[in-house]
Amino acid sequence: MESRTELNSIGEFALIEHLTQYFSIQHESTLKGVGDDAAIIATGGMYDQVVTTDLLVEGVHFDLMYMPLKHLGYKAIAVNVSDICAMNATPKYITVSYAVSNRFSLEAMEELYAGMKLACERYNVDLIGGDSSSALQGLTISVTAIGEVLPEKVVTRDGAKVNDLLVVTGDLGAAYMGLQILEREKEVYKATPSIQPDLEGYEYLLQRQLKPEARMDAIEYLNDLKLVPTSMIDISDGLSSEILHICKQSQVGCDLYENKIPISPDLQRAAEEFNLDATTCALNGGEDYELLFTIAQSDYEKIKGSPHFTVIGHITEQHSGCRLITRGNEAIELKAQGWKSF
Amino acid sequence: MESRTELNSIGEFALIEHLTQYFSIQHESTLKGVGDDAAIIATGGMYDQVVTTDLLVEGVHFDLMYMPLKHLGYKAIAVNVSDICAMNATPKYITVSYAVSNRFSLEAMEELYAGMKLACERYNVDLIGGDSSSALQGLTISVTAIGEVLPEKVVTRDGAKVNDLLVVTGDLGAAYMGLQILEREKEVYKATPSIQPDLEGYEYLLQRQLKPEARMDAIEYLNDLKLVPTSMIDISDGLSSEILHICKQSQVGCDLYENKIPISPDLQRAAEEFNLDATTCALNGGEDYELLFTIAQSDYEKIKGSPHFTVIGHITEQHSGCRLITRGNEAIELKAQGWKSF
Repeated sequence: MESRTELNSIGEFALIEHLTQYFSIQHESTLKGVGDDAAIIATGGMYDQVVTTDLLVEGVHFDLMYMPLKHLGYKAIAVNVSDICAMNATPKYITVSYAVSNRFSLEAMEELYAGMKLACERYNVDLIGGDSSSALQGLTISVTAIGEVLPEKVVTRDGAKVNDLLVVTGDLGAAYMGLQILEREKEVYKATPSIQPDLEGYEYLLQRQLKPEARMDAIEYLNDLKLVPTSMIDISDGLSSEILHICKQSQVGCDLYENKIPISPDLQRAAEEFNLDATTCALNGGEDYELLFTIAQSDYEKIKGSPHFTVIGHITEQHSGCRLITRGNEAIELKAQGWKSF
Repeated sequence: MESRTELNSIGEFALIEHLTQYFSIQHESTLKGVGDDAAIIATGGMYDQVVTTDLLVEGVHFDLMYMPLKHLGYKAIAVNVSDICAMNATPKYITVSYAVSNRFSLEAMEELYAGMKLACERYNVDLIGGDSSSALQGLTISVTAIGEVLPEKVVTRDGAKVNDLLVVTGDLGAAYMGLQILEREKEVYKATPSIQPDLEGYEYLLQRQLKPEARMDAIEYLNDLKLVPTSMIDISDGLSSEILHICKQSQVGCDLYENKIPISPDLQRAAEEFNLDATTCALNGGEDYELLFTIAQSDYEKIKGSPHFTVIGHITEQHSGCRLITRGNEAIELKAQGWKSF
């Protein structure tokens, strides 16, 4: 009898690594294949190209009960632009494919595309192609984004060096808390449909979940500061997971300081209300689409005092491991699924 | 009350045109956006890039009851390579994303990727990225392919000129007939599972359906002949539909000769058995993944006598319309959904 291994017994990253392990790279122009925020291609022109792709599946990545289609369209573009930014590159082109069931009307698809159009304008990307299909169930969106970057400016996940500083943009955990609020109101609505959802006072958290922005502005700040990070990644799966990616691929360790992690007052307040730990939201929440990067200590002066960047730790030798230094000055091993470790 | 327009009341191409109509192109380097087999990008290097993307949805594009996963993987790559070839370009890079339900095992995904690997080797393309997701139902595969072409060699759908010759590679309609055979055996199997499917003698037709090849070889022949077509498209939706695309975008008409359409003996035989018209299979069947192109009459000598190419008609003034000249020398208007017109 044939053996059967369940897909959910393997992590997503391990699965992709497993399935693609025997594919070899044939073209010298493929500078980087699978395994970073985007692939890197040499074009023979002044710029290298970076290519990334993302799939958004209804019921897995979004819930149309509280996600307006226009926001979904915007987010589908923004999350791909975020991957381009994580390579220190500028997004230029995008393709969009969708598979959709007959539950959706033309008017619904127009809303989706209206959101995509807003994002294409916001990030200055050209929609250059796509495909469409019917589906037996639900809505699936596939987006591929292509950006460009000067070869000397491209930043990957594997360049962090011992003593580099660990830096993030913006604040973390808010998108996750926004999702908790939406899920709570969904439960209330399901129990009593006549009650209007109570979303007042949560605007910032909801916006972080429903309409995330790619930090293209941060890439421009870095460029203005003539600062090229040694490594970079975008924060889509929570700070812990992303730090671990950088450390694994750069073969280094790190010390992350809990009291340095930027938490918005809105998250702090809502976390107390929900009896959640704000740090845990930041470490494991995901969907913040901020940038995490490392810089040489000698570059510290360039970002010192900037409202856009926060130093949250530093890179150590690999044998020291990846550690969270708590407010109580305890060192805890960072885990990708950090909920369990608290 | 909001109005609701059903998506299936609009054709696929009309829908994409409608949804993308307000997107404007911002970058000068976007030489061609939505509306051809692939988009064209200027890189600043020696080559232009072409970009195409395709979505394959279980239950819509494939039926795993008779489509082995390894073949599906191969086909997913081949159909994208075919779009690259239709631009007279050489495929170089590919990204693959999938959404998959827990019905699929790791071993099943390994089969899928084994087929993809075969195709990547066959067409000399590098797998450079992708995304993976769980799905509530079924399997959806999204592939994006990037190729390159010298700017003076790129061929689009809109360059056909009056008096140009209409040419196809290979033979047509066999993939559609292969599907009919598989569907017949599926019905037999559903009625009596103990009966082994009777597929003997249909090998060519089945292979055309289950393991189509992109005509990268034909692009190489054209290159060797120093022949650049005036327009080109790949035949994924049936000859009629593709001819109409070329004629519409080139603003021309055409005369297509029924007796010139290349039909394999295998198709001819099976069509008689199934009481189908072989010409209709070729015109409307789809999934042949042959190339349809137009050439200047002065280039006729270059392809004359070639076993790879068949002249099936010529381009006329737009006001003459797109016509099929039957064996009985009758002129019939070509329709995209030609079943109705016979």
